[in-house]
Amino acid sequence: MGKQKDVLKKLAGTFQIRHVLLREALAECLGTLILVMFGCGAVAQWVLSGGSHGSFLTVNLAFGFAATLGILVCGQVSGGHLNPAVTFTLCLLGKEPWRKFPLFFFFQTLGAFLGAVIVFGMYFDALQDFGQGELVVVGKNATAGIFATYPSKHLTLVNGFFDQIVGTAALIVCIVAIVDPHNNPVPRGLEAFTVGFVVLVIGLSMGFNSGYAVNPARDLGPRIFTALAGWGGEVFTANTYWFFVPLFAPFLGAVVGLMVYQLTVGYHLEEEAQVKQKKGEDERFQLSTNNEEA
Amino acid sequence: MGKQKDVLKKLAGTFQIRHVLLREALAECLGTLILVMFGCGAVAQWVLSGGSHGSFLTVNLAFGFAATLGILVCGQVSGGHLNPAVTFTLCLLGKEPWRKFPLFFFFQTLGAFLGAVIVFGMYFDALQDFGQGELVVVGKNATAGIFATYPSKHLTLVNGFFDQIVGTAALIVCIVAIVDPHNNPVPRGLEAFTVGFVVLVIGLSMGFNSGYAVNPARDLGPRIFTALAGWGGEVFTANTYWFFVPLFAPFLGAVVGLMVYQLTVGYHLEEEAQVKQKKGEDERFQLSTNNEEA
Amino acid sequence: MGKQKDVLKKLAGTFQIRHVLLREALAECLGTLILVMFGCGAVAQWVLSGGSHGSFLTVNLAFGFAATLGILVCGQVSGGHLNPAVTFTLCLLGKEPWRKFPLFFFFQTLGAFLGAVIVFGMYFDALQDFGQGELVVVGKNATAGIFATYPSKHLTLVNGFFDQIVGTAALIVCIVAIVDPHNNPVPRGLEAFTVGFVVLVIGLSMGFNSGYAVNPARDLGPRIFTALAGWGGEVFTANTYWFFVPLFAPFLGAVVGLMVYQLTVGYHLEEEAQVKQKKGEDERFQLSTNNEEA
Amino acid sequence: MGKQKDVLKKLAGTFQIRHVLLREALAECLGTLILVMFGCGAVAQWVLSGGSHGSFLTVNLAFGFAATLGILVCGQVSGGHLNPAVTFTLCLLGKEPWRKFPLFFFFQTLGAFLGAVIVFGMYFDALQDFGQGELVVVGKNATAGIFATYPSKHLTLVNGFFDQIVGTAALIVCIVAIVDPHNNPVPRGLEAFTVGFVVLVIGLSMGFNSGYAVNPARDLGPRIFTALAGWGGEVFTANTYWFFVPLFAPFLGAVVGLMVYQLTVGYHLEEEAQVKQKKGEDERFQLSTNNEEA
Repeated sequence: MGKQKDVLKKLAGTFQIRHVLLREALAECLGTLILVMFGCGAVAQWVLSGGSHGSFLTVNLAFGFAATLGILVCGQVSGGHLNPAVTFTLCLLGKEPWRKFPLFFFFQTLGAFLGAVIVFGMYFDALQDFGQGELVVVGKNATAGIFATYPSKHLTLVNGFFDQIVGTAALIVCIVAIVDPHNNPVPRGLEAFTVGFVVLVIGLSMGFNSGYAVNPARDLGPRIFTALAGWGGEVFTANTYWFFVPLFAPFLGAVVGLMVYQLTVGYHLEEEAQVKQKKGEDERFQLSTNNEEA
Repeated sequence: MGKQKDVLKKLAGTFQIRHVLLREALAECLGTLILVMFGCGAVAQWVLSGGSHGSFLTVNLAFGFAATLGILVCGQVSGGHLNPAVTFTLCLLGKEPWRKFPLFFFFQTLGAFLGAVIVFGMYFDALQDFGQGELVVVGKNATAGIFATYPSKHLTLVNGFFDQIVGTAALIVCIVAIVDPHNNPVPRGLEAFTVGFVVLVIGLSMGFNSGYAVNPARDLGPRIFTALAGWGGEVFTANTYWFFVPLFAPFLGAVVGLMVYQLTVGYHLEEEAQVKQKKGEDERFQLSTNNEEA
Repeated sequence: MGKQKDVLKKLAGTFQIRHVLLREALAECLGTLILVMFGCGAVAQWVLSGGSHGSFLTVNLAFGFAATLGILVCGQVSGGHLNPAVTFTLCLLGKEPWRKFPLFFFFQTLGAFLGAVIVFGMYFDALQDFGQGELVVVGKNATAGIFATYPSKHLTLVNGFFDQIVGTAALIVCIVAIVDPHNNPVPRGLEAFTVGFVVLVIGLSMGFNSGYAVNPARDLGPRIFTALAGWGGEVFTANTYWFFVPLFAPFLGAVVGLMVYQLTVGYHLEEEAQVKQKKGEDERFQLSTNNEEA
Repeated sequence: MGKQKDVLKKLAGTFQIRHVLLREALAECLGTLILVMFGCGAVAQWVLSGGSHGSFLTVNLAFGFAATLGILVCGQVSGGHLNPAVTFTLCLLGKEPWRKFPLFFFFQTLGAFLGAVIVFGMYFDALQDFGQGELVVVGKNATAGIFATYPSKHLTLVNGFFDQIVGTAALIVCIVAIVDPHNNPVPRGLEAFTVGFVVLVIGLSMGFNSGYAVNPARDLGPRIFTALAGWGGEVFTANTYWFFVPLFAPFLGAVVGLMVYQLTVGYHLEEEAQVKQKKGEDERFQLSTNNEEA
């Protein structure tokens, strides 16, 4: 046992990374990997089993709880954003420095890419069997939708843009409420579970149009992977360059969601806290005055 | 960063509302908006996808967790009623002043209206596609049921009235138990999740007759929206003025639920607490007597 | 407002019950009513909608969360057994006096009866519509199974008896573990949720044979109701007097479950606690000896 | 009552086991029994009912919450591993002594075997009915898959091996994060629920290839039982000795999962804790220096 502990310590010493930002970025990478591995894995299970081992509900449940688990694994290190739109919101709020944004964006996308790699490896045989050896982007045996999101037939680009804005705004309203120190509605340690419920509900009610990406990294990483892995450039050009929508609309949605929350709830809670603090200060002032008088 | 913080502070100062009741009403508005956006969104996803992206279970789950999230977002400000029948019950109990009732009713209905607007915008293309350009209230391609509730074919008005009374009474029994300070069965911070489970269970077992509105605002707001948005006045006249049922029955149900809880559990817990308090006073009295003797 | 408070106080004074045991029995009655109202309501929704508004999963979820809510509402008063087999187990363990057993059994059965009444009233029209005016116990349009449990075609009486013993034993092992003060694996306030999960899992894995009654009151109360409400005496005679099985087997199952838990976990945790306590006493003894020496 | 307490005490004294390791092994046995009884019970319900009383989702939910309940029942005694791959990981980490590994492995397998016995007994009639008296391993009326896992038709051995490695690695990453004292992302008492969610998500997204054993004991115990109970040696030879995969791959997966977590999150959190501790020591040193100076 003593020998084992020495080995473990030596290992720890060898692999510890000194750079704090890099640590955080690495943690985000693992968290987003978990999100995409479980989430897209559930889509794969649904699609490739022809519905016998999954449904849209199981995909919703998987993405929701995958978000919870991803946040749990990396949250203590990096905050567990798993989503550039969330990082963007926290930067807007002044809670995270802006230099984290591009770094996190890159590592979140990398994590999503690696998650897609794992799903691809895990269901390699099933993909071959399903597509009879071909990897198709659009049509009956399409499998690109396992990894990145594509719009339903009924959806126009404008409505799709609105869809992603609303979905992300809904996500951000809930997340900002959960992490707002003046609101603080959830017991410490349950934030990750609550965010999982938010993702679940978004999937249950906003998933029909285009699969609720609401996360640029979750969509871009796996899309790049499919482009490289055999589906080809069509994953970017399909549906009149649809990939732009889940890449840019979520940032707009983040701004909208933040504004809605701040205007209806956030600012007022903040002011209340300030009023309370001020009252406290006044009382302290009175106390010291009294002391002086005494 | 310093500049950003200045801008954020200035924004906060500009938009803070001084009037406390208005703040609370606004928070209720946002909470009910979240409830209806996610809840009716799930109905839309179920109906418009023809069952491929939803089922009655996903609607139940969405309404349940939407209630949880709505309460979490606005609960610290306004208590998170999201339902005029809940506000009514708390007024009956003397826990909220009666003047809040009409204000909350209005803003909850407004929130539900706005939630319906968002669902309409989000699924605009899908609605066009499903109804082939027409917005139908009753029949095969009916879509009005996405927003407001309508009775099943088998249901008479009398049974429908009873259905809404029982559903709301069940909701109120559980909510009153959860917020009763003498009962207090749920750890602090988990009330919203428990209410979500209540709404989920009501949907799982009381949803077949007429879609478990059990909430006048959740039904009226979206109904008014559908009347304006193109479904027309039929949304009020359909099924022999059915809209009266989810508008009035829930208040009766609230009275029934409150009575059932108080008679079987509430009053006795209250008395127990009083007895304990009295004993405490007697002991304190004895102590002081002893002190005097000593 | 002052006037309202006076009225509320007067009401409270009028209806408070002095007899503590009666209070507890009444609370059990309400808790079991909630269990059956939501649980059998979900069966009704599944059966009467022909599967469009429910499935066996929704029934499982409803019974699970109904158990949670029933326990939450009455647990502070009576402990929230909702099941004579649970009361029986706690009496066996010496945690509840035996005189509570018949009283709780009666009031739990009464609560289950009243829960069935509510489900019957709520789905009166749907029952008429489904059975075309007839209330049938066995066959294609049978509706008696909404209220009490009946065996599947494949099940023999012996296997059915074993089924109910195993189901109840599984329930009791988990419940005894949760309430064992030496084990105490669940944070305070989450016991009701955990029991809900136990009921859910039993339904997911032990429901196919005969609908997992595992609770004499939950089965007998609604069965008596159906006998009176028009289904007739066949509800007792059907399937060679099947009703005996869910009435008696659960008590045997409770004994089995209690024995399994105590032999594999319970007794050893108890002894550990005793050893710790003894050590504590020895140390105190040593301390006092040291003090004497000093 | 006094008499009853004497009897209970005597019973406790008779059956208490002195050997601590044996106690722990027995607790693991009960925990794994619960896991397999509920989990494989849900598979039985799904298969034998022909899908009317279950689906792959209900199996996933059952295995997830069964893991939760198994851990809750035995966790205070043995840690609640329920899985030799988990025990193996904790030994690798130096948190459990290696001599526990073979003992736990044996008793976990025994528990899984006994769980399979209970499922077999409970669904004896249904098994006879379904297989028309025959117990078949492969083909249309196959029932061996209720107990142990078998690969889908599309799966090669290599892909199956990768599948089990990835599944177990995902499980281990999450479990190690949850029990890491430097990470500690979940409130005390909720670990069992979180592990349940992990098992649920793995089922939702990694179950299509071969039924997500990710646990050598859960697979081997029931497989041995089926070999003895009438399915015969084919349960081992089927699919080119598939049984080797869920028996060995999980241990490789555990190593992979542990490495991934330690390299991306674990080592850095450890170092942070060391740095903090060191700072604390330095400060104490400074303090004492100051004291000496003073």
